[in-house]
Formats: sequence, C-alpha cells, structure tokens
Amino acid sequence: MSQLLEDRKYAPVGIFDSGVGGLTVAREIMRQLPKERIVYFGDTARVPYGSKSRETITRYSRQIIHFLQSKEVKAIVVACNTASAFALEQLRPELSVPIIGVVKPGAKVAAETTRNGRIGVIGTEGTIGSQIYTTMIHQHNPKAVVIGKPCPLFVPLVEEGWLKDPITVEVAQRYLASFRESEIDTLIMGCTHYPLLRSTLRGILGEQVNLVNPAYETAQGLKALLMQHRLLDDGNGGSEAPRYQFYVSDAAEKFKHFANSILPCEIEEAQLIHIEE
Amino acid sequence: MSQLLEDRKYAPVGIFDSGVGGLTVAREIMRQLPKERIVYFGDTARVPYGSKSRETITRYSRQIIHFLQSKEVKAIVVACNTASAFALEQLRPELSVPIIGVVKPGAKVAAETTRNGRIGVIGTEGTIGSQIYTTMIHQHNPKAVVIGKPCPLFVPLVEEGWLKDPITVEVAQRYLASFRESEIDTLIMGCTHYPLLRSTLRGILGEQVNLVNPAYETAQGLKALLMQHRLLDDGNGGSEAPRYQFYVSDAAEKFKHFANSILPCEIEEAQLIHIEE
Repeated sequence: MSQLLEDRKYAPVGIFDSGVGGLTVAREIMRQLPKERIVYFGDTARVPYGSKSRETITRYSRQIIHFLQSKEVKAIVVACNTASAFALEQLRPELSVPIIGVVKPGAKVAAETTRNGRIGVIGTEGTIGSQIYTTMIHQHNPKAVVIGKPCPLFVPLVEEGWLKDPITVEVAQRYLASFRESEIDTLIMGCTHYPLLRSTLRGILGEQVNLVNPAYETAQGLKALLMQHRLLDDGNGGSEAPRYQFYVSDAAEKFKHFANSILPCEIEEAQLIHIEE
Repeated sequence: MSQLLEDRKYAPVGIFDSGVGGLTVAREIMRQLPKERIVYFGDTARVPYGSKSRETITRYSRQIIHFLQSKEVKAIVVACNTASAFALEQLRPELSVPIIGVVKPGAKVAAETTRNGRIGVIGTEGTIGSQIYTTMIHQHNPKAVVIGKPCPLFVPLVEEGWLKDPITVEVAQRYLASFRESEIDTLIMGCTHYPLLRSTLRGILGEQVNLVNPAYETAQGLKALLMQHRLLDDGNGGSEAPRYQFYVSDAAEKFKHFANSILPCEIEEAQLIHIEE
C-alpha cells in the first residue's frame, strides 16, 4: 500500500444532512466504526429538504460536498433520504472519493428480508415522490410490491419533542392506515427523524411488521465501502484534531444541544459556516 | 411634483415572505389598493424562517431586498412576521425606499382595541422569542399585558391542508390552553399562515376574543406610507408589464398552484431565481 493510501485511511468520513436528523446515522457509524473520524455538516439554515425540488436539493448537496472535500474527507455519507434520492447519483461522477447514501442500504435489507414481498416506505414528499425506494428494492427483489406514503408532519412533531404524544399517535394512525389494509410485513423508516418515532410506529403496526432503520444498514455499507477501498481506519494514526467535528449553516447552539441529547459522546462545539458562499 | 416622482408612483410595491404565507398579505393589498403594481418574492428554497436565527434571517432578507430593488420597487412590504421581527429595523437604514413590516400595524391595532389590556400573540419560535410584539404593543399601550406562545406545528398543519381537521383542533387546544386561563380579549395571529386557521381558533377561543390579522392593518399602513411619500398609484400610467409579478427560489409550479387557490386573480407564471447569487 502506498504512503498516500496509508495517510488517506486516517482522513475523516464526511457525513451530511439537512439538519439534525442525520445524527441518527452518525450515531450508528460511531457505534459500528468507533475508530473512524467524522466531519458532520447539518444544513440548518435551509432545512427542511423534504418539500423542495430535485434541482434545489442537488445544488445544496453539491455545495456541501465541496465543503466536505475541502476538509479532505476520504468518503462521504449522504445521511438524508431526500438528498440521497435526488442528488446522489447525479453527484457521484463529480467526486474523487467514494459516496454512499441511506436509501440503497435500507432498500436492500427490506428487499431481502420481507417474507410476503409487501414493503411499505414512509418518508418526505421528495423521497416518496422520487420513487427511489421502489427502484432500489426492485433491483434486489423485482416482484416486491412497494407502497409509499409521505408523512410531512412527522419531522415537525419530532422537532416539537412530541415523540409519544397522543396527537402524534393520531397523526401516525392517519398516515399508516393504508398500510394496515395492504398487509405489509416490512416498513422502511425512510427519513432520519423517523426512528425517533419507532415506539409509536410499533404500537400502531404491531410486532408482525419489521421496522427497517436505514441508519444501521448504512453504517454496515460504509464499512464495506471503506474496506473495499482499503480506507478503514485502524485507529493507529491520523492528526490530533478532534475525532468528531460538527459544522452547521445556522443556529449552532441549538444544534449542539440536540446533538448532545442523542449522541453517545459529548460534543463541545458546532461551528457555523456560510455554506452558500 | 417632479417628473421623477410622477414616474416613481407607477413603480411596483415589493412584497416578500419566506414562502406562500405572505400571499395572505398580498391578497389584502390587492383588495385595498387595487391600482398598485406588485412584485412578490417567496423564498421557497429556504422556507421556513420561523425556527432560524436572527443573523440568517437578516442575511436572507438583505439578499431579497437587493433583488426587489433591482426590480425598481418604490416601497417594500416585509410580509413575514419572523423577518419583520428580526431584520426590518436593521435593514431600514440601508434602503432608499420606504419599508413596512407586518408586526407594527398588527401590534398597534391590538394595543388600541383591547378592552381589558390583555393581549395574546401566537407566532413562530423566532417571532415570539424576539418579543417584538410586546415591544411594539407597549409603544402604544405601556400597561398592556402581552402573552406570547410559539405554535411551530401550525404552519406544517396548514401546508398539509388540515385547516379544520380534528388533529389541528387538538393541537390548537394544546397551544391555546394558557390563553384561556389568562383571560385575553385580543389574539394577534402573528404568522401569515395562521389566518387560514381562523375558524379553528375562533371555535376554541369563542366570540369574546378579537382575532387580529396583521395583513389587513399592513395594507392600511402601506396606503398611509405611500400617501405620505406621494407614491400612491392612480392607475393612469406605468409600464405594460403585468400588474402582478411573482418570483420564487424553488418549486415555482407548486407556488403557482397555491397562489391561485388563495388570490383573487389568476397568476400565469411564477419565475424561478437563485436568490443567494
């Protein structure tokens, strides 16, 4: 292995999301790959992405990827379903480092583990409208029936902190009603906020429906990708910079507070940058 | 009056908002000032503003005001409560045209019409956190008791179209509970989406609470401002450009569809621009 490759494996992984939701993916990567360094970017000045157009999300994602590359990341994780749906394939050819999104790993495990071939997907308007989960699931299981449902109120309900509130249960019952009739046995939580509603979703759908959290599969996919490129960090080198670095485009203190409520480690600082410049 | 001033009065009024909400203000201006030309900008690529910081909202507002000035507007209406709260006073000295927000007109009428001196204000986290309504009300009625309550779920509920839905009623009951105990006789709907929830709010608070829609007062304030500056359009001149022009930073078709559902006229086009450039 060349010196260059030796050095590269100690470079950080870049992770980005529209805001705080992608921290559920970062958390899973910290758990499964504790030796990896991370540079996280949350686009809190332009959040949410879920209701915006493909062109806009692609432009935003391109700006963020440029920023992450300026931090010399060795790989990029798109920890946002909407950005994975809209921007990933278009941006891949522009990149010199490997990139992975959250959609493909989640779709693969759902396609492989469903027993009756009936899979539900919940996500933002953008993710569901793109039909990307259907396309990806069919690559592994062409006969699967995939039923998508946008759930635009879930993100604001999570951000209000009403995770198990009766109002949230009522909203979830409304959104999930069609799934109960269509007899799915697998539901992909296709937005990074949704795993925080897991127990509410579980209560409505019952134990017979398997809830897929793409964050877990994405961390596994990242590990495979890093191994394939011989970029897995062995923890024996690298700079003296903090293992985990956080950047946001707005409201750094609020971000830090939220991050500290869900990450396994205490973060000391989230740095504010103007991503559009 | 100079030729320059004669020409200026036929220039359009610039109106901006974070997205579609400000159309309720534009609608009121169309009704009260039917001879005025309008250039409307909705920042649909970066919506919502209500949860973002003062610095970010001020930067966005400055970009939009530059755009509106490039359209040679004769006056600017900040049709967004959060931008009025955070950015208006800071940007006023940078401007060569008069500017008016939605907060001051709404605060003034509430301060002058309350009978028991107890006023409620609902709005975004940004608007309520800024305390701007309290400050503005106290300028007219220093003894008024002002009680603010952020209602972050109201905008997504309106955008989901659940205006009179039982879930929306339940959310509103939760948010408004403290007002019923505090015996307000006036409630300012301090976010441009909220007038669309008027009948739900009315049902909870009853007939004895006066609901103030700042849009109405803002149109009156604009008329006074234009008269003061001798800029009121008499309808006898001006260019052959369409009377009403709409610009957005994302999702122009969706915007057009929404606009046509609430405006008194049919709009043919919303033009997409990259506001951050």
